[in-house]
Amino acid sequence: MIFFGGDYNPDQWPESVWPSDISLMKSAGVNLVTVGVFSWSRLQPSASSFEFEWLDRVLALLREAGIGVCLATPTASPPPWFTRSHPDAMPVNRDGVRLTHGSRDTYCVSSPAYRQASVRIARELATRYAGNPAIKLWHVHNEYGTTCFCDRCAAGFRIWLRFRYGDPAALNDAWGTSFWSQRYGSFEEVLPPRATQYLSNPAHELDYRRFFSDALLEHYLAQRSVLPGLVTTNFVLGEWVPVDHARWARSVDLVAVDDYPASIDDHMASRAFTADMARGWARAAGHADGRWLVMEHEPGAVRARALRPGTSAAIAEAYLSRGATGVMYFQWRAGRSGAEQWHPAMVPLLDELAPLGRSLATRSPATVTASTALIYDEECLWAWQSPHLPARLDYRAVTQRWHSCLYRPVDVVPVTASLDGYSLVVVPALYLMSAETHAALRAFVAAGGTLVIGAGSGLVDECLRTTPGSLDDLTGTRGDFWSMLLSATDGEPAVTTHAYGAGVVRSVATDLDVSEHAKTLFGEPP
Amino acid sequence: MIFFGGDYNPDQWPESVWPSDISLMKSAGVNLVTVGVFSWSRLQPSASSFEFEWLDRVLALLREAGIGVCLATPTASPPPWFTRSHPDAMPVNRDGVRLTHGSRDTYCVSSPAYRQASVRIARELATRYAGNPAIKLWHVHNEYGTTCFCDRCAAGFRIWLRFRYGDPAALNDAWGTSFWSQRYGSFEEVLPPRATQYLSNPAHELDYRRFFSDALLEHYLAQRSVLPGLVTTNFVLGEWVPVDHARWARSVDLVAVDDYPASIDDHMASRAFTADMARGWARAAGHADGRWLVMEHEPGAVRARALRPGTSAAIAEAYLSRGATGVMYFQWRAGRSGAEQWHPAMVPLLDELAPLGRSLATRSPATVTASTALIYDEECLWAWQSPHLPARLDYRAVTQRWHSCLYRPVDVVPVTASLDGYSLVVVPALYLMSAETHAALRAFVAAGGTLVIGAGSGLVDECLRTTPGSLDDLTGTRGDFWSMLLSATDGEPAVTTHAYGAGVVRSVATDLDVSEHAKTLFGEPP
Amino acid sequence: MIFFGGDYNPDQWPESVWPSDISLMKSAGVNLVTVGVFSWSRLQPSASSFEFEWLDRVLALLREAGIGVCLATPTASPPPWFTRSHPDAMPVNRDGVRLTHGSRDTYCVSSPAYRQASVRIARELATRYAGNPAIKLWHVHNEYGTTCFCDRCAAGFRIWLRFRYGDPAALNDAWGTSFWSQRYGSFEEVLPPRATQYLSNPAHELDYRRFFSDALLEHYLAQRSVLPGLVTTNFVLGEWVPVDHARWARSVDLVAVDDYPASIDDHMASRAFTADMARGWARAAGHADGRWLVMEHEPGAVRARALRPGTSAAIAEAYLSRGATGVMYFQWRAGRSGAEQWHPAMVPLLDELAPLGRSLATRSPATVTASTALIYDEECLWAWQSPHLPARLDYRAVTQRWHSCLYRPVDVVPVTASLDGYSLVVVPALYLMSAETHAALRAFVAAGGTLVIGAGSGLVDECLRTTPGSLDDLTGTRGDFWSMLLSATDGEPAVTTHAYGAGVVRSVATDLDVSEHAKTLFGEPP
Repeated sequence: MIFFGGDYNPDQWPESVWPSDISLMKSAGVNLVTVGVFSWSRLQPSASSFEFEWLDRVLALLREAGIGVCLATPTASPPPWFTRSHPDAMPVNRDGVRLTHGSRDTYCVSSPAYRQASVRIARELATRYAGNPAIKLWHVHNEYGTTCFCDRCAAGFRIWLRFRYGDPAALNDAWGTSFWSQRYGSFEEVLPPRATQYLSNPAHELDYRRFFSDALLEHYLAQRSVLPGLVTTNFVLGEWVPVDHARWARSVDLVAVDDYPASIDDHMASRAFTADMARGWARAAGHADGRWLVMEHEPGAVRARALRPGTSAAIAEAYLSRGATGVMYFQWRAGRSGAEQWHPAMVPLLDELAPLGRSLATRSPATVTASTALIYDEECLWAWQSPHLPARLDYRAVTQRWHSCLYRPVDVVPVTASLDGYSLVVVPALYLMSAETHAALRAFVAAGGTLVIGAGSGLVDECLRTTPGSLDDLTGTRGDFWSMLLSATDGEPAVTTHAYGAGVVRSVATDLDVSEHAKTLFGEPP
Repeated sequence: MIFFGGDYNPDQWPESVWPSDISLMKSAGVNLVTVGVFSWSRLQPSASSFEFEWLDRVLALLREAGIGVCLATPTASPPPWFTRSHPDAMPVNRDGVRLTHGSRDTYCVSSPAYRQASVRIARELATRYAGNPAIKLWHVHNEYGTTCFCDRCAAGFRIWLRFRYGDPAALNDAWGTSFWSQRYGSFEEVLPPRATQYLSNPAHELDYRRFFSDALLEHYLAQRSVLPGLVTTNFVLGEWVPVDHARWARSVDLVAVDDYPASIDDHMASRAFTADMARGWARAAGHADGRWLVMEHEPGAVRARALRPGTSAAIAEAYLSRGATGVMYFQWRAGRSGAEQWHPAMVPLLDELAPLGRSLATRSPATVTASTALIYDEECLWAWQSPHLPARLDYRAVTQRWHSCLYRPVDVVPVTASLDGYSLVVVPALYLMSAETHAALRAFVAAGGTLVIGAGSGLVDECLRTTPGSLDDLTGTRGDFWSMLLSATDGEPAVTTHAYGAGVVRSVATDLDVSEHAKTLFGEPP
Repeated sequence: MIFFGGDYNPDQWPESVWPSDISLMKSAGVNLVTVGVFSWSRLQPSASSFEFEWLDRVLALLREAGIGVCLATPTASPPPWFTRSHPDAMPVNRDGVRLTHGSRDTYCVSSPAYRQASVRIARELATRYAGNPAIKLWHVHNEYGTTCFCDRCAAGFRIWLRFRYGDPAALNDAWGTSFWSQRYGSFEEVLPPRATQYLSNPAHELDYRRFFSDALLEHYLAQRSVLPGLVTTNFVLGEWVPVDHARWARSVDLVAVDDYPASIDDHMASRAFTADMARGWARAAGHADGRWLVMEHEPGAVRARALRPGTSAAIAEAYLSRGATGVMYFQWRAGRSGAEQWHPAMVPLLDELAPLGRSLATRSPATVTASTALIYDEECLWAWQSPHLPARLDYRAVTQRWHSCLYRPVDVVPVTASLDGYSLVVVPALYLMSAETHAALRAFVAAGGTLVIGAGSGLVDECLRTTPGSLDDLTGTRGDFWSMLLSATDGEPAVTTHAYGAGVVRSVATDLDVSEHAKTLFGEPP
């Protein structure tokens, strides 16, 4: 079975609309809907009162219709009564501005009151709906991604640093604090990377992202621990997101991603990349067959630009052929109000979506086995955002371009993934490379593999310390990637081939047009 | 008689300059000058002292010369001594930053101290100059437009909401707070739309503008109530301005607008639009013959770009032929200092302006009677600024383009205006349409009128709730304006004609080039 | 002897690297290195402890090798332990945001704690290293430039204003506070130009820059007073810098500038301009032969864009032929971490730099004698940043373009410089002209000199009050520079020649292409 459906927010519509919703869903082959993502203020109208009856009725209707439920905890949007009582649960930006309610995602995960309130509503839902047969999956929160710079986060950051580094000397060494007199005498002197006079320390910025990924994960795990059954959360992709999804994949029962291509121009290539990456995360985290779910995508449009009729089936196929266990949209029926009132929804497109949904009834998830791996690392994505780089590569865009030139199937894998079983490993623009990554790539090639490595790779270690020449033995070149990135190619061969152990390394010294050199780089089609 | 003159700030020059100013004015046909707009710190040098003697002398000189005075209350720029004593009278921006003095317009109308100080200086002026025969008009404040997000404004907003909605359930329904868990348990939980994590609620934003228009109006009315004679304030146009001028027009004795075209390219079309709109506001508010005054415009330039010599007469004609009772400039003589020291002024251009001024002595205001109305609504202007619209139309620019394609004369009218007497009503991009507007348009067409309605109209109600298909009966089409706005036209007829009652509706489904379809849309020239 | 070397930060590298550094330096002809610029947290790891042994060893190694030292006080980057104890020593921006440590330059010079700590570390260095023969020069701080808007700075500003103006009436007259009701009843009412509602007062902004230049100078002088030997600080150029370098030049023993051209396109012209300007500052401040030092420039690159091999020698020649006493780079060896880890350094370029360095051993500083002066004034640079100018000239760019069209040699001199001995004085875009400047130019021409004056000159006085027609007697034209600047030339002669006294004035009414009129403007090559 393939999951087909989307976010369903019946609480945004009069109850009289519900039966027709359910009926339309049935006829459209919908078999899973995500309920309750933004229902906190409806489920708990005040600190001391809960209202579950409406949700009882929704679940009953869905159960009767044989439609499964992905039940969400609503913690991504705390109600006004809560944030009014706990202004210190609101996030603070770099400038020290404490934000206010009025949107979504406005929370600080370091706030004890917010953590307690989150676990409380999750526990109430768990208690009430444990064993409800309609529920196929629990969905914690929504699109974790809010960074905060408040004093509580500062305290948490210091604890995290103490755990990571042990003593200030190790921190100073890792961050290179001799530069610009930033040496810390104790962890107590460390702050989040708040507004400062000039350029910030890149390693400081990177560690704050890592800390925040863990702080958010702690919030997730606290809810997960009280929920029965299978639990997930929907990963949102974007370069501002302080979540290391490869790492988080180990803490979910099903990897679920929201996929919103950046533009309509190359949206199919973007979807293919996301799909191969989600499967890569799942497999590296030990999920059987690398199963994953597209939890949200936009029906019939990209960034509100309408797609040609009939594109939905091709999009679904892009996901399913890459191992998706389901195809879900945001959302079933748009609300009449709110900031996303014009976000495309399924109902107006049922002429196109219903045949698609029905066609999935007899399908099973595909199992993908690839002999090519492309490495994509979110810590590297963050590292490319360091202040003051000589050139700022769009890491996702560059990697996606390489991906689109590879012969399928391809696994997009995190740096922590095993490379066993691959014959070709492709590494575009992997600016940050730890000693472990260096070792893994050498072991892979030494054992006979083919490695293709792109410009901008191997420039810094996991602390963002420069590592000049760190790839020279592997590529057989004398690397000065920056100057090559920044110069025009001058007729010289941009691709170098070098034997290493039983394998071979092909390296690219400039930001060349991969599509023109695909055969040279990746070989003949298999 | 036609008013001719401008802002006159003699307090920015030594008294020795005044007699020559007056003499030049006389020879240039100047018969009205606005005095005192920014004179608070001169009129009241400290909390306990007033200095009116210099103003006495200015008014005496003007009276002797037979030049009328539009006497301003100076409240748009409180003096440093005041704001130093009352820092809580300074506005706070969305980020919570309390601004400081050092510019103009830096005030919070919700501050009791500021309101009291404003009424006090207005009363002092009224007492001293009531009955002064030089004074033709009182001018309250200047270009109302400062929005504040402080706690006092928050409290005022809550009172306003309570008055508008009665109970929180109605507010929740109007704002659609089920979306993103924004449901308010009480009015106490509502805040101004301050900095938040992500997109704000569009209805929240719109109601804050409406509230602010009323809060500013309260400040105006408090002054008006103590002034003798005819009272006005100069409306400033701009999409940031939280003032509903159609509504305010009912509270002034003469509609006065400041007209600063956005660029030199189409400045004449812009002036024509502003003029027809000012007259429309005046007429809808019951002012005889729709009389209005251009209180400020820039002499000889647009945005500091010099106009060709001789253009001033054409500009004056553009205003006068559309019912203006006067042509006023900012300003008579530029100050030597300050942020606007390079703002063009009348004195250096008297070779051109004096003949113009003298030529107006024998003119009378024109009375305009139009059978065509074009609807322009400032609430709609604000609604087009909602976050996250699929496409952001420049409402003023689109409407002005339509206006420029219509056969004159045209009334530009607010949605609240009666449509009686018009044979053609033109409605471009009226995104927000209340039930009253829907009813008024249908009544107009049913009775035999011709309605031309443009893409982007009728998409939401007065609470910005989507109203899909709300115009279908009127246009005879199945409207999905967004997708059409966002798609290219594909050869199909973009203009649809539909009979409705005794009238006819022509609708445009895309953002087409109106000038190419003017005849189809608006018919043959009368 | 010519100085050759750069910033040397051995504390960013293990001690084992030092001997090879010194050896490489020797063979590259390095004879001066700047040490300790960012070493505060290493030299004083806590409030109560100092660690100088490592610096002792560095200085000993350098001395043994015969390499001179420019020893820096490290106050441009206070350590985290300090700023944690003294959060009020952190600067506050216009919005009232108090910045935090984590970068460099994060300090408020008005903080007593910071001033004391600065003098303390300077005195410790002075005591320990006074008489050390390796030390050729003391280097206070680094690139003074941090503006702060805190309450302490506000208090300092008021004292400064009281000293400058004596009483509020003079201040009001200077700033033109009658405009927009900004009249101050007492100095107590004046604030820094913090965030306000609309345009700020340009004279207020300019005086805050002047005050800040003096506030920073006070911080410099406090350190200078405790240091033995020759003392300097490195001037950084940039339009945000609140330092009047012509004035500061009188307080240094050697004028030292950091030269980072804005782009690679015209970097040689930029260097020539900077060099002639540095010499002009030095000469006007009474330094013998106008000697100056390029303390920092980027080796082998401009803004991280690589220069063609061999360019270094041409760059050095550009400085040396204009009177530089030395050619210094930032920096010897790049750190592996921190925001500038990718900043080009000398070590990787020694193939090119070492021959250059060695070639300088036999050179002496050039003495330049010019009969042409070009006036460049940093107060004018700030004045060009006034809000709301009709056109915003890039003053440095315009002046540099003129400079590049002049026959060498040229002195670029501040407005305060004597014009004696010049036959040609060139004045491009000197917007701000004080009465002293007006008098000096007239005296120069009256005595037989040739003055070439460009559009945009003489528009305001030193308080930024407009001075219409102030150059008419000199140029023989009726000047309305703005309208000419803003209009296209229309075939009319753009250059006017006018006899004045025994001399001649050529004036340019538009922003013409100087290179095409060089012969007309500046005459035949000498």
